[in-house]
Amino acid sequence: MSELDKTAQISKQASFLTAMLDNTTKNNALEAVAKALLANKDDIISANNEDIARSEQEGLEQPLLKRLKFDEHKLNDVVDGIRSLIGLPDPVGNIKLHTTLDDGLDLYRVTCPIGVIGVIFESRPDALVQIASLCLKSGNAVFLKGGREALKTNQILFEIIRDASVEAGIPEGWINLLTSRDEINAMLGLSDYIDLIIPRGSNAFVQYIMKNTTIPVMGHADGVCHTYIDRYADEYKAIRVTVDAKTQYVSVCNATETILIDKTLKDTLLPKLITALEEKNVTVHLENEVTDWHHEYLDYEVSVKITESIDEAIDHINRYGSGHTDAIITENDERADYFMSKVDSGSVLHNCSTRFADGFRYGFGAEVGISTGKLHSRGPVGLEGLVSYKYKLYGHGDIVADYASGAKKFKHIRRDV
Amino acid sequence: MSELDKTAQISKQASFLTAMLDNTTKNNALEAVAKALLANKDDIISANNEDIARSEQEGLEQPLLKRLKFDEHKLNDVVDGIRSLIGLPDPVGNIKLHTTLDDGLDLYRVTCPIGVIGVIFESRPDALVQIASLCLKSGNAVFLKGGREALKTNQILFEIIRDASVEAGIPEGWINLLTSRDEINAMLGLSDYIDLIIPRGSNAFVQYIMKNTTIPVMGHADGVCHTYIDRYADEYKAIRVTVDAKTQYVSVCNATETILIDKTLKDTLLPKLITALEEKNVTVHLENEVTDWHHEYLDYEVSVKITESIDEAIDHINRYGSGHTDAIITENDERADYFMSKVDSGSVLHNCSTRFADGFRYGFGAEVGISTGKLHSRGPVGLEGLVSYKYKLYGHGDIVADYASGAKKFKHIRRDV
Repeated sequence: MSELDKTAQISKQASFLTAMLDNTTKNNALEAVAKALLANKDDIISANNEDIARSEQEGLEQPLLKRLKFDEHKLNDVVDGIRSLIGLPDPVGNIKLHTTLDDGLDLYRVTCPIGVIGVIFESRPDALVQIASLCLKSGNAVFLKGGREALKTNQILFEIIRDASVEAGIPEGWINLLTSRDEINAMLGLSDYIDLIIPRGSNAFVQYIMKNTTIPVMGHADGVCHTYIDRYADEYKAIRVTVDAKTQYVSVCNATETILIDKTLKDTLLPKLITALEEKNVTVHLENEVTDWHHEYLDYEVSVKITESIDEAIDHINRYGSGHTDAIITENDERADYFMSKVDSGSVLHNCSTRFADGFRYGFGAEVGISTGKLHSRGPVGLEGLVSYKYKLYGHGDIVADYASGAKKFKHIRRDV
Repeated sequence: MSELDKTAQISKQASFLTAMLDNTTKNNALEAVAKALLANKDDIISANNEDIARSEQEGLEQPLLKRLKFDEHKLNDVVDGIRSLIGLPDPVGNIKLHTTLDDGLDLYRVTCPIGVIGVIFESRPDALVQIASLCLKSGNAVFLKGGREALKTNQILFEIIRDASVEAGIPEGWINLLTSRDEINAMLGLSDYIDLIIPRGSNAFVQYIMKNTTIPVMGHADGVCHTYIDRYADEYKAIRVTVDAKTQYVSVCNATETILIDKTLKDTLLPKLITALEEKNVTVHLENEVTDWHHEYLDYEVSVKITESIDEAIDHINRYGSGHTDAIITENDERADYFMSKVDSGSVLHNCSTRFADGFRYGFGAEVGISTGKLHSRGPVGLEGLVSYKYKLYGHGDIVADYASGAKKFKHIRRDV
């Protein structure tokens, strides 16, 4: 048995205990973590400076260096995040269904943690704090694997979180840090101990993970989002919303990458829209110049396609989109409903910007990520994406033979929960 | 592009349409299918007789021949099943969450079908009818692959269901039958078109499927269920429940395979329990004879382990069990709660038989199967296991820039649904 196997086994055992923690214990531990992070500010920042210096020397690109930076501002942000998590209700132990099967035989569906979660994340060290605190609040144990660039920062953040939480009563072994790339591959084989893998990173990376594990994977591949301007669109709303959807923040997955516009608006609305986009420094690629409709620009660029019908627009989205977020701009509610039913995406929007598709804007408080899969969680995933449920059945010596023989009959009375 | 690719593409297109069907259309189609099955009774039974004759010649074992049989009785059963499905509420289009993000900006979480589902099932032809009607009711398209033994029966059942449902207004291409083993492997690669695979069969088979696809898999591996008799158990209940859990139907996944019993009951309750089990022809394997605690007997055999403590019992279950169904017999409610929180299984039971863990007994009306996974669905899976959800956001020209600049603030008012 390898070291990692042993660690995973210990972590699994810890997860049975974290599943039973009450909300007060978890919240106290989160507050202890927040305080410890603030108290160790100088050490964290100095570790981060080491990472940055080394990465600069190794020629890491500027945008990545920016993501790697963990200064006082970032520290205050993650501490605020932890404190808002403390204010959220416990996602564990909630009764979602109660059925009286028969007199004295009561069934409950109760939320519980998933167990042990493996998270592989990119260079931002703040992601480590976010993920660890989400797992703590939801009663899960966690394996964390961050980017190599952030080695020192991740190590110190991990140690602070582990020590503060364990001292506050969270079972030892609930949090683990992996530091080498080899350990990712080893982790993918630990289906006896790890219940869910959440990879954050490039499309190719997520695909690689999915191909190499039998552990369920929750993640989003990419965000090829569309804004469709229907022939019944209001011009003011169409331009305002589309410009926001493209330009409000270009390097994120819910930014619009392709504009679909009805042919009747080709000489009226479209020229004005192009002018508005160009004023924001967006390069507009008209359909004859576009070679790959699957492309995610993540930049001040956008593809435009002129469509014959709402069905052509929907078909285009279902074919080339990534099932992330797609919007229709129209004053015709029936057409909006048709679009929103037939487009097969996690978020479908009417007369508003694709940029709204986000856990914080949706009011989930904390966001695990955005899932483009359809199983378990879809779209922006809040804390409830980190919980499963179990059935609890309470009886008084009840046996199935009584029902099989017909001596007793099920009543199946659904109770309010 | 292969034939199967083309079929899958057509099926995906059909799934966008089945997602929009209203409950009346789906129920009318289900009734048409029920009537068509009854009207074609003679042809179905004669096709089944061919399958049985061929399989007998090929030396198929008696229990499998019994499962293969599809007579008038089985036909009436599946027709009853379809009609009870008609009586269930539509699993699609239900609003599960409604939040007013801000004035005139309303978010809904609405249930929708998963899309295209691939189901691989064992020799029973009634499974084909059951699965097809569950998929129809939930608005999913489906690929069906049954056992080779049932070739002719499956073919005629498939044609009857397809023809009757399409005539009743369900989009062509929604249902597909695969007939060769090669097609299973081809199907596992169709992650662009197929959203979920449900394999029903042996543990090894389910593992094989999981290892060879990136498509999410929902299934149950095996059922190593436990009944733990605590030191505070009532003797009458303990014997009554444990005998039912072991013997009421031995060849099913929720039958108890291992009895754990507190050491203080070794010379009192245990001998009486063994006598009661032996009266039902159960062979009792005491712990010194047991070599594999993972073993699923599916027969009149049971393993018995004497435990020092409730924690030893829980650890044994979490280590050797399959996360299916486990029961505690005790008059001490606190110990019951402790057991039910710490045992990591889909169903945890207090003072009742493990045989209760079943979709019909739980009152779900129809059962897709029992999932030992923790993502999406866990335990007995009803129709809601075949649906996902999407977020629908309705605005009036709203843009994120207004919120990023602080000009507007989210209200996040949770509405009752």
